[in-house]
Amino acid sequence: MHDYRRTHSCGDLNKTHAGETVTLSGWVHKRRDLGGLTFVDLRDRYGITQLIFDPNKNADLHKLAGNLKHESVISIEGIVHPRVEGMANKNMVTGEIEIEVSHLELLSESLVPPFTLNDDTYEVNEELRLKYRYLDIRKGNLLKNLTIRHKAMVATRRFLDGEKFTEVQTPIMSKSTPEGAREYLVPSRIHPAHFYALPQSPQIYKQLLMISGLDRYFQIAPCFRDEDLRAERQPEFTQIDIEMSFGKPEDIKKLTEGMLKEIFKECLNVEIETPIPVMSYHDCLENYGTDKPDVRFDMPLVRVDDIVKDSTFSIFTDQLKNEGCIKGICVKGGAEISRKGIDVYTEFVSRLGLKGLAWMKKQNGEFSSSIVKFFPSELLDKLSNVLHVEDGDMILFAAAKESVVNQALDHLRRHIAKERKLIPENAYKFLWVNDFPLFEFDEEENRLTSIHHPFTSPHFDDIKLIDEDPLNVRSDAYDCVLNGFEIGGGSQRIHNQELQKKIFKTLNLSEDDIKTRMGFFIEALQYGTPPHLGIAFGLDRIAMILCNTDNIKDVIAFPKSLNATDLMMQSPSMVEKVQLDELKIKTLAEEISVI
Amino acid sequence: MHDYRRTHSCGDLNKTHAGETVTLSGWVHKRRDLGGLTFVDLRDRYGITQLIFDPNKNADLHKLAGNLKHESVISIEGIVHPRVEGMANKNMVTGEIEIEVSHLELLSESLVPPFTLNDDTYEVNEELRLKYRYLDIRKGNLLKNLTIRHKAMVATRRFLDGEKFTEVQTPIMSKSTPEGAREYLVPSRIHPAHFYALPQSPQIYKQLLMISGLDRYFQIAPCFRDEDLRAERQPEFTQIDIEMSFGKPEDIKKLTEGMLKEIFKECLNVEIETPIPVMSYHDCLENYGTDKPDVRFDMPLVRVDDIVKDSTFSIFTDQLKNEGCIKGICVKGGAEISRKGIDVYTEFVSRLGLKGLAWMKKQNGEFSSSIVKFFPSELLDKLSNVLHVEDGDMILFAAAKESVVNQALDHLRRHIAKERKLIPENAYKFLWVNDFPLFEFDEEENRLTSIHHPFTSPHFDDIKLIDEDPLNVRSDAYDCVLNGFEIGGGSQRIHNQELQKKIFKTLNLSEDDIKTRMGFFIEALQYGTPPHLGIAFGLDRIAMILCNTDNIKDVIAFPKSLNATDLMMQSPSMVEKVQLDELKIKTLAEEISVI
Repeated sequence: MHDYRRTHSCGDLNKTHAGETVTLSGWVHKRRDLGGLTFVDLRDRYGITQLIFDPNKNADLHKLAGNLKHESVISIEGIVHPRVEGMANKNMVTGEIEIEVSHLELLSESLVPPFTLNDDTYEVNEELRLKYRYLDIRKGNLLKNLTIRHKAMVATRRFLDGEKFTEVQTPIMSKSTPEGAREYLVPSRIHPAHFYALPQSPQIYKQLLMISGLDRYFQIAPCFRDEDLRAERQPEFTQIDIEMSFGKPEDIKKLTEGMLKEIFKECLNVEIETPIPVMSYHDCLENYGTDKPDVRFDMPLVRVDDIVKDSTFSIFTDQLKNEGCIKGICVKGGAEISRKGIDVYTEFVSRLGLKGLAWMKKQNGEFSSSIVKFFPSELLDKLSNVLHVEDGDMILFAAAKESVVNQALDHLRRHIAKERKLIPENAYKFLWVNDFPLFEFDEEENRLTSIHHPFTSPHFDDIKLIDEDPLNVRSDAYDCVLNGFEIGGGSQRIHNQELQKKIFKTLNLSEDDIKTRMGFFIEALQYGTPPHLGIAFGLDRIAMILCNTDNIKDVIAFPKSLNATDLMMQSPSMVEKVQLDELKIKTLAEEISVI
Repeated sequence: MHDYRRTHSCGDLNKTHAGETVTLSGWVHKRRDLGGLTFVDLRDRYGITQLIFDPNKNADLHKLAGNLKHESVISIEGIVHPRVEGMANKNMVTGEIEIEVSHLELLSESLVPPFTLNDDTYEVNEELRLKYRYLDIRKGNLLKNLTIRHKAMVATRRFLDGEKFTEVQTPIMSKSTPEGAREYLVPSRIHPAHFYALPQSPQIYKQLLMISGLDRYFQIAPCFRDEDLRAERQPEFTQIDIEMSFGKPEDIKKLTEGMLKEIFKECLNVEIETPIPVMSYHDCLENYGTDKPDVRFDMPLVRVDDIVKDSTFSIFTDQLKNEGCIKGICVKGGAEISRKGIDVYTEFVSRLGLKGLAWMKKQNGEFSSSIVKFFPSELLDKLSNVLHVEDGDMILFAAAKESVVNQALDHLRRHIAKERKLIPENAYKFLWVNDFPLFEFDEEENRLTSIHHPFTSPHFDDIKLIDEDPLNVRSDAYDCVLNGFEIGGGSQRIHNQELQKKIFKTLNLSEDDIKTRMGFFIEALQYGTPPHLGIAFGLDRIAMILCNTDNIKDVIAFPKSLNATDLMMQSPSMVEKVQLDELKIKTLAEEISVI
């Protein structure tokens, strides 16, 4: 029997191999007949190599080759020949050579695939691609993405291991906790009516590992959330989870900057600039309207309250009286945008709750628009100044409650940047966001709640404010933002029991409450807890940016569809009645639930 | 505020640091007062450093130190001093120095722990240790084990990445399959009465990845089985899962020998010998009575049917007439074992279904025992010969059905080896076991069933036997055995649809059956499946051997107890009714299932 083991991959051979006898195995990518010869493009994940079958040299083989179906798996033996003058293909790594086949074995014949794999179109219906995921992967782009994701994990682990972090696998069959996102439950057979829960993150485990003295922990950890899916969400996702003892936020930042550097170098050969700039939560909202600003391009939000208050434009002045605010953005070269174009923007922001946009264009040194008349020229000069308006630009103004202004202008800013191609390609702009508030006031519950979680440490300088002015207490939390996406977040944790108790009291939680919810963890905190802090990065999100895709399914081998279904396996599925009986559970539609 | 960030760990300092001002942070391991001075042993995971407090130099600090409770977390600043002549402790890395403390900060006070952490006793009740797992880890041995496990993962990944394998994360929310072990189910909220299942292994996914052209896959993969636990089982466990295309078993063996070499080098600095010897399934059973022989020591099982058939010992000759067999083992120096000792062995094997043991001792060139009289001297010579009996040895015989003889003598052989200390310490003896039968006959179902799974390839040379003599068809499966434990197993898979159909037919499965059970996979096989094969190693089992423990809980950070409970978190637990309502499930003991 022919030995199908390869001497080379389909991406290996070039002129220097001429004359060698080689064995290649792979998939029939294309077959064509030309001038009496049959050519077969043989493909594997590493490349494509051209095979040639000449009926004058071996009629049987030529006939066999002529019957090969696309995507069948074959193995061949043959001799490497340089292609004849003028026939070399410079776009292929192996374009200099072809193989004159002396032996061909059909290892596995393929049916006609449900979509073609030998062209570059990705127009196929996504459901069909998910159903035949293995073919969609074979088509190529997903293979590349899985390789990039692998490299990101390799770089992460190599770096953290080098920094003496220990990877620890924490349980996937965990405990249901009443706060946070909705959880997936796992019924226990041994303990009827009891359930495990799949973890939303290893947060509690990693803090316990710090209490256990592990000192430096990490894990590339599977996490689970039973939420209604959006395009960038999956029921299971992956975190790069890190925790360390006896450190401060600047240490975690420095550490993970090194890690991100290694990831981007490994995967894209891109050198990212460090240290990553830091921006406060307040400045983010003020200047970008969001706590995850995309700083690959300019066009900040500029508050003009102090200028427009002296205008006679009542829409603005009324807003100021109603505790609203007015911010503007300067669209470079935007004076060319038509009235219709502005209407499209207005429609865009109206979906974000903003009633309208005011605008001014500057051309030939003069501002024009229907509202210019309400602004004396000194105010126009001031606006021009603070918004850095040059000839040919346009200002767009939003006037409303501050949160509405921020949300609308944040989205509009990004929309315009995309539309006007202001975002440089292959730019990777990181940002640390700091100084989040520790608490927010929950109108519904009529009490303070934690913005992150109740174990987040307040900023040391603000501990004194907890009693009198809790809403102005900053936390020691930090988010990592890349190109406008939050890719990671973490915080210093509270390690001091007195401070922890004070925070609980401020949150209006009773000791009983705490005990029921998190008793074992509170107990653990009392046996010698070191100062500790950590962070978690979303690996899927990072992989999406590395792979330049905005679809999370493009970076996961076997993703779920939007309704949390695996279309290939048809999962979730009905199960046998005996399985439910053993678990002592019943579904409320049992007649349809069992096979 | 004192900056608790360390300049050194508690395992770093020696005489060369004398005179340096350092900051250390850690746990109060021990405190003692001696000659008016107070000494504190400060501990972190890297070591222990002695702190000294002299009331004559700083009375306040001395007083503070005197109140420190064990396991409290402190941070100190101080100067490194060489210990005075004669006080150095050569058993401690830092035994040459002590720290004269100039500043002490209590970071977190500890309650009295439920068991002492500053001695080497591990006599504590296991339930208590599991409840306070973070303290048990802190005690030290588990920290070391977690580090070894981490190193094993590092070595595995480094090696496989170097061999161009891509790590791919496959879904944890998978599909229920009707064969194999009992599964954990996850009810779907979006699809009432439908369930995901946690995977027993990524088997199907990795085969699909081969069909997708990934070529070389691996994953350190979480796996799940809802079985009644034994000491070496956990509901979740970890596999080093590998699959490759266009290879043969010898390739997988060579590859994974390299991987095992790297793991043992990294974790224990042990060079394991490769290539690993190969033994057939038949030879394993014949010579060791088991398919996972411990070959660290000798004492094979020797079949003596052909010799004893000529004796007049009717217990033996009757067995031979009843299709039983007789095997012996030679216990070196066993002539010293008393009648009582032999009775203990007899009792031992009786629990394994063997009714009795016959024995002969050789002393001063003569055999003695109550059965010697049934054996003419030429038979005794022959026995002596095949069992390599020397003066001072003892033969133990088992006579019964072959499977009973094998099981009893396998266990007895290992029992005696342990008892008589025949097993060299730190020996790592690997073995490949080959040539398993492909099928066995299932009396209950009255049909052939697969010994591994129906996708396992038959041995190429035996394909022709499938029809006439299926029970003699060998499979292309291989197990990896280390020190008597099966640490891995895998096989060549079937990639040819015709052969696959033939196997299904031989198993008496209808096409409908197949379609219902594994339809999507059978369909996938038809779109160009490369020859592929793989293996999975049990990481927990490997870690146990690396850590020299026979308790799987010793190599898992947060294990479940024998009844699948997390005693620390008290999981599984009852959940809120609203959670079950959303999932549209009811427990059959609902009144107790919700909080």
